[in-house]
Amino acid sequence: MSAGVALKRPKLVSSQPEERVDWKKRRAEKNEAKKQRKEAKLIKQLEKQKQQDAAERAELEQSQNKKGPTYTVSVALPGSVLDNAQSPELRTYLAGQIARACVVFSIDEIIVFDEQGEDVKSVEGEFKGVGKKGHACIQLARILQYLECPQYLRKWFFPKHPDLQYAGLLNPLDSPHHMRIDEESKYREGIVLDRTPKQGKGSLVNCGMRKEVRIDKQLQSGLRVTVQLSKTQSQESKLCKGVVVAPHVPRTEGGLYWGYTVRLASCLSSVFTESPYKEGYDLTIGTSERGSNMDQSTLSPFKHLLVVFGGLQGLEASVDADQNLDVSDPSVLFDLYLNTCPDQGSRTIRTEEAILISMAGLRQKISAAFSGVSNV
Amino acid sequence: MSAGVALKRPKLVSSQPEERVDWKKRRAEKNEAKKQRKEAKLIKQLEKQKQQDAAERAELEQSQNKKGPTYTVSVALPGSVLDNAQSPELRTYLAGQIARACVVFSIDEIIVFDEQGEDVKSVEGEFKGVGKKGHACIQLARILQYLECPQYLRKWFFPKHPDLQYAGLLNPLDSPHHMRIDEESKYREGIVLDRTPKQGKGSLVNCGMRKEVRIDKQLQSGLRVTVQLSKTQSQESKLCKGVVVAPHVPRTEGGLYWGYTVRLASCLSSVFTESPYKEGYDLTIGTSERGSNMDQSTLSPFKHLLVVFGGLQGLEASVDADQNLDVSDPSVLFDLYLNTCPDQGSRTIRTEEAILISMAGLRQKISAAFSGVSNV
Ligand SMILES: C[S@@+](CC[C@H](N)C(=O)[O-])C[C@H]1O[C@@H](n2cnc3c(N)ncnc32)[C@H](O)[C@@H]1O
Ligand SMILES: C[S@@+](CC[C@H](N)C(=O)[O-])C[C@H]1O[C@@H](n2cnc3c(N)ncnc32)[C@H](O)[C@@H]1O
Repeated sequence: MSAGVALKRPKLVSSQPEERVDWKKRRAEKNEAKKQRKEAKLIKQLEKQKQQDAAERAELEQSQNKKGPTYTVSVALPGSVLDNAQSPELRTYLAGQIARACVVFSIDEIIVFDEQGEDVKSVEGEFKGVGKKGHACIQLARILQYLECPQYLRKWFFPKHPDLQYAGLLNPLDSPHHMRIDEESKYREGIVLDRTPKQGKGSLVNCGMRKEVRIDKQLQSGLRVTVQLSKTQSQESKLCKGVVVAPHVPRTEGGLYWGYTVRLASCLSSVFTESPYKEGYDLTIGTSERGSNMDQSTLSPFKHLLVVFGGLQGLEASVDADQNLDVSDPSVLFDLYLNTCPDQGSRTIRTEEAILISMAGLRQKISAAFSGVSNV
Repeated sequence: MSAGVALKRPKLVSSQPEERVDWKKRRAEKNEAKKQRKEAKLIKQLEKQKQQDAAERAELEQSQNKKGPTYTVSVALPGSVLDNAQSPELRTYLAGQIARACVVFSIDEIIVFDEQGEDVKSVEGEFKGVGKKGHACIQLARILQYLECPQYLRKWFFPKHPDLQYAGLLNPLDSPHHMRIDEESKYREGIVLDRTPKQGKGSLVNCGMRKEVRIDKQLQSGLRVTVQLSKTQSQESKLCKGVVVAPHVPRTEGGLYWGYTVRLASCLSSVFTESPYKEGYDLTIGTSERGSNMDQSTLSPFKHLLVVFGGLQGLEASVDADQNLDVSDPSVLFDLYLNTCPDQGSRTIRTEEAILISMAGLRQKISAAFSGVSNV
């Protein structure tokens, strides 16, 4: 396994305000020379993915005792949902509700898509700081990443940032990889420390325990890594021992939900086309009160499920805003277009509510799909 | 139908701060002479209920074209959930989340129960005003009632009150009985106006329309009433015409969700024993991560379903705090004790999330129960 695979999750959202501006500039440039860059990027991405996939696959095939699910579930929603909040505090809280909803249902990937082209627009003006409106996609992605990160690693990966000003109001995710200091676990998330290891020895990692962990490899300091702790540890030693594993291992082999990755998409169609899974999503579900009654639908087994939610104006608005799409009816984009709450008692269900409601309904159908039981 | 039946909903929570203190005093007294008073009250209540039920039943039997459900669904939760919020703003927001969750699933009755005996305790100290903690049951009930009330009636029924200080942050329920001014509807909620009607003429009612409504009866001013508007209205007339109906009519006959009632219970056991339905709840479900997997359970048709949620410490804490209950395992109190989110990815699901998740799962089972389809 290459060290690259050991990298926990791509840092899509920079945690430094200065870098954020850079990121935006990059986006603006990208828009000017979109096609050319896209091609180059695509090739590069494909190559990188191929390598990663090959390594992951080899690993997967090697390991014998799988306990976790053999599939992944991704959730996509527009960042604009944050603009539906009435104060910076509630905007933060809303982001936290979304993170929690995804964790409760063990979502593997959250995709925040732009349905307004807002990031491009906002580079033209001057930086306004964190306000009630604007740069919703980046702020949502940043809060999602912040919450996913175990508490003891946050000071490293998330230095002060205006987007995180009200992070104190966020409810914790309480997911299995958020370990307390004395909790025993086969796996832990850690950060490679900035100390040059002796020749022939592996790097030191802070895994949020009382002792530091010596891993099997020499890795770049500052990397986030997933560590499998050795079964036997010497009580006297000042250090623990462990090996670096791919981030999916706790999930696929240990059967533990191990957090989500976050991906930004510049429009609805990029949600589909920029999938991190080589083979893409093989089952896609759009959600809408105008979809068909979910009670009458069955799911077949899948490898990579994608469930897409709309914002205040529904998926119609996301489709309208996407210049790559010349359809107006969102339902044609999906394998299934489902009303997950037939006979709703409120005229509108908010996106953060719809995630909990829809995933609760789909959970039963997913488990039925994989247990071979009829699920209508 | 008696005029009493036309009363929309009992005002369990007074909207005046002064009255709240009175209410507390009453509670304290009640606690001193609990048994004696309880008996007397019970007899009185039973009598009143009998009358109401008889009237309702007669009405129900008369009406022919039922479109709505033939059953009711009640949700109970401890008011203490509010104490889990980090600021007065978020406390208000949380109450709003609960109201919305119940409306989305067309809940008929919300019961807020006291699992701390807090109201009794708080009479001993001095009044502290609206703080972060304390008098959670009353505040939750008040916000629930405020939100249920159509916007155009709120100024009458909910004068300024510290509990409602942050009501501006609440998301609207958007339920069918929250009518906009020019919306056409067979039914409307209204308030009887303070103008003495001419001999032989009915009272005037404000139903949030441009014109006032003349009803068929003379009723006490200030009453909240449900009005069925006459099919033909004269364009020239300065008034509309309508008749007063029982509050359940839009639901049972019109098939429209018409909001919930709110009931305060002094402890968990009162949730069961003080049911407004003569025959009580004939199906009761407790919710817990330690319940049995809901995927393996089926519901039979019922008349009055009660679904009970716990607070921060689960239903165990509610059982412990209830002096009328000498069990320690909550599951024995219910027909079904269900885990509605098997394999949850977070160590804890918050009560406001659990309502959406559980009712989404139960919705399918309820509709299956009444359509005769197997629902395992
Ligand atoms: C505020 S709603 C959008 C409402 C918008 N007016 C519309 O008509 O689509 C936000 C999102 O919640 C989800 N949603 C709302 N109600 C739903 C339902 N009954 N079934 C499935 N998804 C729903 C959809 O993803 C929707 O785009
Ligand atoms: C914060 S939880 C209570 C957690 C508490 N530590 C316990 O063990 O019960 C609050 C409430 O949410 C509901 N709840 C949480 N998880 C649930 C699940 N998996 N199934 C059904 N209800 C659940 C229950 O009503 C519970 O009392």
